[in-house]
Amino acid sequence: NLVITDDDVIPERDVILEERRSRVDNDPGSQLGEMRNAALYIHHPYGTPVIGWEHEIVQLTTQDAIEFYDDWYAPNNALLIVTGDVEVEEVKRLAETYYGPIEARDVPPRARTEEPPHRADARVERSDPLVRQESVSITYHAPSFRTAEVEGRADALQLLDQALSGGATSRLYRKLVVEEGLAVSAGSRYGGDDYDSSTFSFYISPREGVSLEDAEAALRREIEALIASGITQEELEQAKRSLRGSAVYARDSISAPGRIIGMALMAGMTLEYIEAWPERVEAVTLDEVNAAVEAVLEDAHSVTSVLKQEPTS
Amino acid sequence: NLVITDDDVIPERDVILEERRSRVDNDPGSQLGEMRNAALYIHHPYGTPVIGWEHEIVQLTTQDAIEFYDDWYAPNNALLIVTGDVEVEEVKRLAETYYGPIEARDVPPRARTEEPPHRADARVERSDPLVRQESVSITYHAPSFRTAEVEGRADALQLLDQALSGGATSRLYRKLVVEEGLAVSAGSRYGGDDYDSSTFSFYISPREGVSLEDAEAALRREIEALIASGITQEELEQAKRSLRGSAVYARDSISAPGRIIGMALMAGMTLEYIEAWPERVEAVTLDEVNAAVEAVLEDAHSVTSVLKQEPTS
Repeated sequence: NLVITDDDVIPERDVILEERRSRVDNDPGSQLGEMRNAALYIHHPYGTPVIGWEHEIVQLTTQDAIEFYDDWYAPNNALLIVTGDVEVEEVKRLAETYYGPIEARDVPPRARTEEPPHRADARVERSDPLVRQESVSITYHAPSFRTAEVEGRADALQLLDQALSGGATSRLYRKLVVEEGLAVSAGSRYGGDDYDSSTFSFYISPREGVSLEDAEAALRREIEALIASGITQEELEQAKRSLRGSAVYARDSISAPGRIIGMALMAGMTLEYIEAWPERVEAVTLDEVNAAVEAVLEDAHSVTSVLKQEPTS
Repeated sequence: NLVITDDDVIPERDVILEERRSRVDNDPGSQLGEMRNAALYIHHPYGTPVIGWEHEIVQLTTQDAIEFYDDWYAPNNALLIVTGDVEVEEVKRLAETYYGPIEARDVPPRARTEEPPHRADARVERSDPLVRQESVSITYHAPSFRTAEVEGRADALQLLDQALSGGATSRLYRKLVVEEGLAVSAGSRYGGDDYDSSTFSFYISPREGVSLEDAEAALRREIEALIASGITQEELEQAKRSLRGSAVYARDSISAPGRIIGMALMAGMTLEYIEAWPERVEAVTLDEVNAAVEAVLEDAHSVTSVLKQEPTS
């Protein structure tokens, strides 16, 4: 029974515009991030920033907010996560008392736009005097936990990410930051919790005195070496140990398990799938990780994103 | 009173799929062109190929065709162009006899998506063993005849395009093909007849023995020189003479004037605006052309598209 009027919506719209201005318009890295996402998703709405484009935010009306609320804010379209020192039966009873009376109603079908295959490498580049730390990222399309067709593929990618990038002994940090001394940071990122297709990316930020071009070349050499030889059994075992550890640490927090499970359920996974994660991770073989490297990186078109410092003239 | 059934639509859908496969999938240049358009229009539907993405064409149904027909095929949403040895009064009488009885009806509002400002340079690159002629194009957003806010801006861009690219004496051909001998072709293109925003682009194809990198660097030098110094009065006069000539030649054809006027009307221009074109072109000053250069090219983010030959291994 929400009542919203222009008095609620219009000031809130201004808050969002201000948020966009301070977070995106004043930050060359965020501006570049929007352009990178647009290059990664030329058709799927993941290419549109979640906060929206400024010229469209300014046109939003109270009526738009009401229509969105009426379409989507149905109890059958919501997930209640309760975490803490509670009893399941008591939570159920309270939920039924307070949420039970709200009637279910039809929500619109969710149109899932499919991204067409990319047929070219893309590169987005932004130079700005405000840039303090230069960086390059190279991003590939990759399946998410929900969309992976090969069993264990998403788990393999998560282990790969961990082997390349999880901590001081991981490959990219060790080689590019420690051994070669080219970078202040270097790593990978796998975002497997997208509902639709996801990405696997690599990044590097050069150390002072190292050119961005040299840093990018070093990162590309690592990607080439990875495609050519994969990771080692030892790297895989270390990655498994790290993930095991982070799963244990996550339980120490009150909010983390709720957040992790909530996000995973919203991303289309089931409770059983989430709970079987430790066993699935243990079962991943080296062949599976290196098959994932080949499937995602070899002969694939990537999106390179370059943040450069422009000398003030 | 159109009657269409699966017997009409499904075979036609297969024809379109086949057309897409032969025109796009077998041609690296067309594939790259789709990726370039997607980079140019990250939000506006001009980034979607007119023929459609393959995975969406295959899902189209007879019902989709009927709905499109019912929505848009109204006489008040159509333009009849008759060209040839005809009398206006006779054409009007016949049109009223045959088309008059078809009743006008509401068509849906046309949602005009606005492209957000680009905040990074983009580059799309495709290497393929099938490429016979390498090329680079550099494209900038530019106003169309309909969207230009500065009076005469679109005419100025058309004259600029002509000065750079119209024939053997034009600047880019003369410098890059004839004098420097770097290219087999080089020029510019202005597409002012878009309904929404348009583009101004530059292209070069290197001569055998010239690297694509050197050709691109030469093209960029020409763009820099243009931004720094504009075009000359002599180049402007020559461009006006050329456009005057092409307007005269266009009248020699039966179909060309009809096509030109039809496209211009569909692109949102009026008959008066179209008819005043020769006077508008004559009136454009050198300052107006060079202000257009500055407005469109200086400090603007461009999309570079690179078609490369991949050596067969």
